[in-house]
Amino acid sequence: MTDQTSNQMWGGRFAAGPDAIMEAINASIGFDRRMAAQDIAGSRAHAAMLAATGVISDSDAQAIREGLLTVLSEIEGGTFTYSTALEDIHMNVEARLKDIIGEPAGRLHTGRSRNDQVATDFRLWVRDQLDAADAGIVALLRALLAQAGAGANWVMPGFTHLQTAQPVTWGHHMMAYVEMFGRDLSRVRDARARMNESPLGAAALAGTSFPIDRDMTAAALGFDRPCANSLDAVSDRDFALEFLSAASICAMHLSRLAEELVIWSSAQFRFVALSDRFSTGSSIMPQKKNPDAAELIRAKIGRIFGANTALMMVMKGLALTYSKDMQEDKEQVFDAADSLMLALAAMEGMVRDMAANRDALAAAAGSGFSTATDLADWLVRVLNLPFRDAHHVTGTLVAMAEKRGCDLPDLPLADMQSVHAGITQDVYSVLGVENSVNSRMSYGGTAPAQVRAQIARWKEKLG
Amino acid sequence: MTDQTSNQMWGGRFAAGPDAIMEAINASIGFDRRMAAQDIAGSRAHAAMLAATGVISDSDAQAIREGLLTVLSEIEGGTFTYSTALEDIHMNVEARLKDIIGEPAGRLHTGRSRNDQVATDFRLWVRDQLDAADAGIVALLRALLAQAGAGANWVMPGFTHLQTAQPVTWGHHMMAYVEMFGRDLSRVRDARARMNESPLGAAALAGTSFPIDRDMTAAALGFDRPCANSLDAVSDRDFALEFLSAASICAMHLSRLAEELVIWSSAQFRFVALSDRFSTGSSIMPQKKNPDAAELIRAKIGRIFGANTALMMVMKGLALTYSKDMQEDKEQVFDAADSLMLALAAMEGMVRDMAANRDALAAAAGSGFSTATDLADWLVRVLNLPFRDAHHVTGTLVAMAEKRGCDLPDLPLADMQSVHAGITQDVYSVLGVENSVNSRMSYGGTAPAQVRAQIARWKEKLG
Amino acid sequence: MTDQTSNQMWGGRFAAGPDAIMEAINASIGFDRRMAAQDIAGSRAHAAMLAATGVISDSDAQAIREGLLTVLSEIEGGTFTYSTALEDIHMNVEARLKDIIGEPAGRLHTGRSRNDQVATDFRLWVRDQLDAADAGIVALLRALLAQAGAGANWVMPGFTHLQTAQPVTWGHHMMAYVEMFGRDLSRVRDARARMNESPLGAAALAGTSFPIDRDMTAAALGFDRPCANSLDAVSDRDFALEFLSAASICAMHLSRLAEELVIWSSAQFRFVALSDRFSTGSSIMPQKKNPDAAELIRAKIGRIFGANTALMMVMKGLALTYSKDMQEDKEQVFDAADSLMLALAAMEGMVRDMAANRDALAAAAGSGFSTATDLADWLVRVLNLPFRDAHHVTGTLVAMAEKRGCDLPDLPLADMQSVHAGITQDVYSVLGVENSVNSRMSYGGTAPAQVRAQIARWKEKLG
Amino acid sequence: MTDQTSNQMWGGRFAAGPDAIMEAINASIGFDRRMAAQDIAGSRAHAAMLAATGVISDSDAQAIREGLLTVLSEIEGGTFTYSTALEDIHMNVEARLKDIIGEPAGRLHTGRSRNDQVATDFRLWVRDQLDAADAGIVALLRALLAQAGAGANWVMPGFTHLQTAQPVTWGHHMMAYVEMFGRDLSRVRDARARMNESPLGAAALAGTSFPIDRDMTAAALGFDRPCANSLDAVSDRDFALEFLSAASICAMHLSRLAEELVIWSSAQFRFVALSDRFSTGSSIMPQKKNPDAAELIRAKIGRIFGANTALMMVMKGLALTYSKDMQEDKEQVFDAADSLMLALAAMEGMVRDMAANRDALAAAAGSGFSTATDLADWLVRVLNLPFRDAHHVTGTLVAMAEKRGCDLPDLPLADMQSVHAGITQDVYSVLGVENSVNSRMSYGGTAPAQVRAQIARWKEKLG
Repeated sequence: MTDQTSNQMWGGRFAAGPDAIMEAINASIGFDRRMAAQDIAGSRAHAAMLAATGVISDSDAQAIREGLLTVLSEIEGGTFTYSTALEDIHMNVEARLKDIIGEPAGRLHTGRSRNDQVATDFRLWVRDQLDAADAGIVALLRALLAQAGAGANWVMPGFTHLQTAQPVTWGHHMMAYVEMFGRDLSRVRDARARMNESPLGAAALAGTSFPIDRDMTAAALGFDRPCANSLDAVSDRDFALEFLSAASICAMHLSRLAEELVIWSSAQFRFVALSDRFSTGSSIMPQKKNPDAAELIRAKIGRIFGANTALMMVMKGLALTYSKDMQEDKEQVFDAADSLMLALAAMEGMVRDMAANRDALAAAAGSGFSTATDLADWLVRVLNLPFRDAHHVTGTLVAMAEKRGCDLPDLPLADMQSVHAGITQDVYSVLGVENSVNSRMSYGGTAPAQVRAQIARWKEKLG
Repeated sequence: MTDQTSNQMWGGRFAAGPDAIMEAINASIGFDRRMAAQDIAGSRAHAAMLAATGVISDSDAQAIREGLLTVLSEIEGGTFTYSTALEDIHMNVEARLKDIIGEPAGRLHTGRSRNDQVATDFRLWVRDQLDAADAGIVALLRALLAQAGAGANWVMPGFTHLQTAQPVTWGHHMMAYVEMFGRDLSRVRDARARMNESPLGAAALAGTSFPIDRDMTAAALGFDRPCANSLDAVSDRDFALEFLSAASICAMHLSRLAEELVIWSSAQFRFVALSDRFSTGSSIMPQKKNPDAAELIRAKIGRIFGANTALMMVMKGLALTYSKDMQEDKEQVFDAADSLMLALAAMEGMVRDMAANRDALAAAAGSGFSTATDLADWLVRVLNLPFRDAHHVTGTLVAMAEKRGCDLPDLPLADMQSVHAGITQDVYSVLGVENSVNSRMSYGGTAPAQVRAQIARWKEKLG
Repeated sequence: MTDQTSNQMWGGRFAAGPDAIMEAINASIGFDRRMAAQDIAGSRAHAAMLAATGVISDSDAQAIREGLLTVLSEIEGGTFTYSTALEDIHMNVEARLKDIIGEPAGRLHTGRSRNDQVATDFRLWVRDQLDAADAGIVALLRALLAQAGAGANWVMPGFTHLQTAQPVTWGHHMMAYVEMFGRDLSRVRDARARMNESPLGAAALAGTSFPIDRDMTAAALGFDRPCANSLDAVSDRDFALEFLSAASICAMHLSRLAEELVIWSSAQFRFVALSDRFSTGSSIMPQKKNPDAAELIRAKIGRIFGANTALMMVMKGLALTYSKDMQEDKEQVFDAADSLMLALAAMEGMVRDMAANRDALAAAAGSGFSTATDLADWLVRVLNLPFRDAHHVTGTLVAMAEKRGCDLPDLPLADMQSVHAGITQDVYSVLGVENSVNSRMSYGGTAPAQVRAQIARWKEKLG
Repeated sequence: MTDQTSNQMWGGRFAAGPDAIMEAINASIGFDRRMAAQDIAGSRAHAAMLAATGVISDSDAQAIREGLLTVLSEIEGGTFTYSTALEDIHMNVEARLKDIIGEPAGRLHTGRSRNDQVATDFRLWVRDQLDAADAGIVALLRALLAQAGAGANWVMPGFTHLQTAQPVTWGHHMMAYVEMFGRDLSRVRDARARMNESPLGAAALAGTSFPIDRDMTAAALGFDRPCANSLDAVSDRDFALEFLSAASICAMHLSRLAEELVIWSSAQFRFVALSDRFSTGSSIMPQKKNPDAAELIRAKIGRIFGANTALMMVMKGLALTYSKDMQEDKEQVFDAADSLMLALAAMEGMVRDMAANRDALAAAAGSGFSTATDLADWLVRVLNLPFRDAHHVTGTLVAMAEKRGCDLPDLPLADMQSVHAGITQDVYSVLGVENSVNSRMSYGGTAPAQVRAQIARWKEKLG
């Protein structure tokens, strides 16, 4: 393959060749080669359509389509030589095609342009990532459901402000993440449905006078329909931004779970033990077992939302239609997609492997006056106190217990009655952690029966 | 209304009162009062449900519900006195309710918590904004469709890289924005469907032991269903982040149109005249007519995406469930929502008012060798040249015309034939701007017939 | 004061008045009134200079300067009526000046423009914030130094990955933040030195033909010199962006300290007790004492960096010189500055008030094989093992201790010798936490003597 | 070199080896190999110091230092084999050193840790980038000064809101960018001075008990001093964030200049011609000459500020000291640094090559009533009108000229006098563009003499 300059490609208009700086800033072949399969699929669909509509001959189309398969096998086999002077994947593929099949290669670009070509390639690539994210999220959901199922009735402290608030169950906590990642799944699917339109045939920006059939190429590439406005088709990057937005929110959820895993792995919490396979040691402190994977997952939100920021900033204020600024889209999306898929896979593995420390969870659940709310609710329900009054009585009792260095169930009845005379022995029935958890039967509450119902609903949903 | 401190509210546990700094950083009443109507609607639904399920008496519920209407009318009438010591809108409303109806007010908070209360209020508020954005986008779409309909066949230059590429039509250009804002509309509607779940009844975090009916309150507030996990319900802010993400992409589209309006209003372009009502003058340069509204709209993407950044950063790595960090959600969303609605309204007004300068558009469309692609396509179609060869011939002819200081239609046939002998008189039929535009009949192309078909499709879609 | 429209201000060019939308998007008086004092100071300096250079009469200048003081006292006294129709603080002040002094008010705007006027006002405002940040950081440094001084030799666990790594001292940990906020202080001072240039006299963009003396106004306003290029002077917002950048990094440091305070306040850590004045209670859980102030401080990085993002995005790609987009600068900077000052003050208060739990710190410091590194270093120093071998031996000993359920100092010598025969009784001298800490005498290390030296250095530096 | 797993490195504690996912998310050798030279320089300085302080023998130190040079030459020669299982550049270099020199290699890591090692490497790398940015900015400044010098008196329109405001000179416009990039240079230098401290010797986090000499290694590596707190030394990434902040502001300036070049290259403006070497053609539109380099530079702000966002988000809320999250620092900074250097170089080339179109600039400068301000100023100066009245008179005259379709110099005196009777023939002396420009002699103004003075000042400053 000759390493001719791309200026030669453009025709004879330019006097000076691009120098090294220009090549470095302008060439995209260093990264857009990742879209080789998509580029070739798009070109093959285009060639078939050109023949079907009589724009090129069947024999030319066949030569092109077979030649492109040869190029693809060279790329997949690692024998393809990329040329920076040919700038991008489109030129590289086409030049190689010409080497292989000669003159008919020059007819492939009829009725299209690099503008709609790159838009098509990139959409196909992003669509693949939406599918990969879908699969990655579903796998993580299954891992969380397995943890939730195993520990639907294991008690643990429920936190607000990282302070013990009320007892909850391990299963309930896991299911909170199922809801979060479930919304991520829903967002990914909405994004896929919205973006599944074909830019191919928009040509440079205005459409074409060749009698092309855009529905045919759209169908061949699995798109639901062609983009309805050719100017928009070549200047739109919403599909990338919506992917980055959905990925950012998903990465935020991952960062929250990762933060919990880091805190829960500390010597002070000991709520979970992460597996060795997702931990590492220290070069200087042999005793350490560090939750590196959790920390790296926690950090990915920076990278993914950084990409979102980058592309949003790139697109800000760009006059229509295509501008070269938009070439900055791909590396951001590539990196964010890689980061998301890796983080999802690592989180799935960690969640599958991790072992909850039931004893530590239970011990923590029972401390810190965690059933104070149950006491307040008992005062409302049994003594018919207004909630605000019950709250005040409970506060006084907690202060009393704190002073004595005991927890609520250990406070003598007489002491309780000194605060409110109506309190009876029955109150102790609600001060136990298990009772507390079992009593929260409101829809979506932490009672094991509620948790199990939600697990069943999600399992059915995921199929 | 007594200005008691909120510590008094919490019961007697705290020795020291919060000082001025703490009050300044902690109190939210300065901004969350914007959710007063939502807060009262939520409380009224909650009270009705508590009575229906027998948790409180019908008479208490009625006193609460009527008292809350009184509070609402005081707020709407501007006679309500807000207290910073009472921290937030929830406490302010409840304290005033107690002033009005006395003891039953203390029963309202049964079976709920400020955590699910604020989550409910904020969701209702954001849902209203999604509806407002829906309406604002639809109005803008209608304004764009009106411009497109008026100028479906007005020729103008189509740009890539802000260089004249091919002639397109004004209507086609307007319709590109219809596609963009149409996707925004679709995103807003998906977001609304996803977020329309009720947190009410999640209580502090774990649900409640009171026999509440979450479906009833959900239905009363127009939600499709209750949130399925109480921990998630109080710690989720996805609905706000998805609103900000959708708003950011919409603001990006606005920034692109605004940029074009600024450039088109320059003395050098003169493609459009903005109305006086959306322009301003200069304090020192009396001749100026500045596109201020377009510039301010262009800038709103910063503000809206800045809010997106802010809330994403706030939520990063927060352990479950509610943390006070999340109080930083509201001001960001309030500001972004206000900015979006204002920008949509201003853009709609500008688009309605603006007058395209048909003569300037047509003159620009015909210059700059804008039909070079038509020439290349003619060579392919008529002389059966491979596209790449046709491209090379065209490049040579453009260089020739440029040297002579003329445009392509003015190049003598003999000169053309000196570059490629097969060129005939017929070639001139494709070098006119009108012919060029009319020929691009591919689906979504710039031909007026195509543009009109798209306008009709959108008008039907919007109803 | 008449509420005349600003169009009347601009002269008679505009046919239509701006309607409500335009007023809402265009007017800045709702926020730029915060710069009233700066605006008046700038105008007074300008008037004095105009008289000194003979552009206006001394009597006019005196009337203007005195009239402006009257306006200022009205504003400070709360009796000033702002008009949205007059758009901004500059017009509001000037209109009121005209009411008070009549015709000479019209001479004030000679040789300047709103472009250099707003640039001057905003620079003065930002300069004040840099000074406020300086003071706020210094106060926080002093609070940290006090904590460090009190606990220079209190042992606590040093963490990496939130896993116990090696024992350190409380003072050392506090001093780490002194270094961080010390760099913030240095950044703030560099920013102030760089931005302290006067835009006044740049006029609209090109300078002026009036014989103004820019050095005189610069000096009067405390600037080091006038800006050297008038185009740059009216289109530069670097000073705001550099403030936001420095504030963002400072907010990041605050978020790290806040995170530690939240974790340290948990029932599982109990490393510190925050004062009641910076904590709050719960409406439903009377036992809770929540670190709200720490959480709110942790969140401020979102708000501040969000403002940085917003303004960076606004400035991206703006053609010179002034564009109305730049009006979006102020609210972002106002909000970020308020957030930073509040967060610094709240953190200072929390640090001053907080009580370290020495016993809990010491207990945690001695667990988790925290002196494993000391053991490894002993093997290197005394037995001359290569570090990598010593590391391996230590790892084996830690595994042995873990298996036995004891810590390193409790491992019998015989067992140690079974792993490496050369180990002697002397090894136990380095396995105690106090010994470990005292031994780390390298510059900047955790030994109390080192910590005290650094405290002394900083105290001298701050004066 | 054996491809042993890093778990073997850490000692025998881990049962399971990291699987593929963990390796993918955890290993940094794919990118941190860029710090090989810095890593080796740091190790060589450390070894020399260990010998000088008697911690290791001179012969071991010599073997280590020479062995490291061999490793460096292998890396530079491309013969080094990197191992992912060895995780990072530090382990890779050390393992290879052991292959080459055997047992003494194990003594190199005495008194340090990977935590201070990576902090040192990365600081050295960032310091190199600050130096590269310094050089790149200086080169761009020289290119701008050359353009300014050539066209110090070429008139062009000065814009606000992209509307012609007043005539300015080409040199003045170029010098506005000199001020901007001059501030960038100053920021880069401040950042370098602040960050030039050595983390080496902080060890894992607490310092070390070995009698190391941190001043000696600091001096050997060109640092001004050692970091004063070992906890801070290993957990600080301010130096990277400050680089990214300064780079972001510089990229914002580049985006503004790039935007102007794109607009100025349009057929409608034709203010400049970019050289072929920084432009490209179109695959379908042979007549196009696209300002690709300018567009790509304009886009780099997204990438660079995206990296700033990413790292800020990563660092948010990280408890001390080192966490693995911080490994996400390098790729962001690498990419941002590459982008900045490339953008600076490309901009320098474009500025050097570009040819201003003096005729187009002059023609544009004289249209659009650009001397209206001069007229207003004349009314103030000669007729002693208050500025506001002069402004009103000028507005009326502009409206009159606009109606007649002429510019101000073409308006008959009688017409002028019909608006204000005091106007005399003398007024025409200020209505010419050249006169206007020459009259703006205020410091920093657009008069060619002022511009030349600023050019001279900057040339002297840059030396």
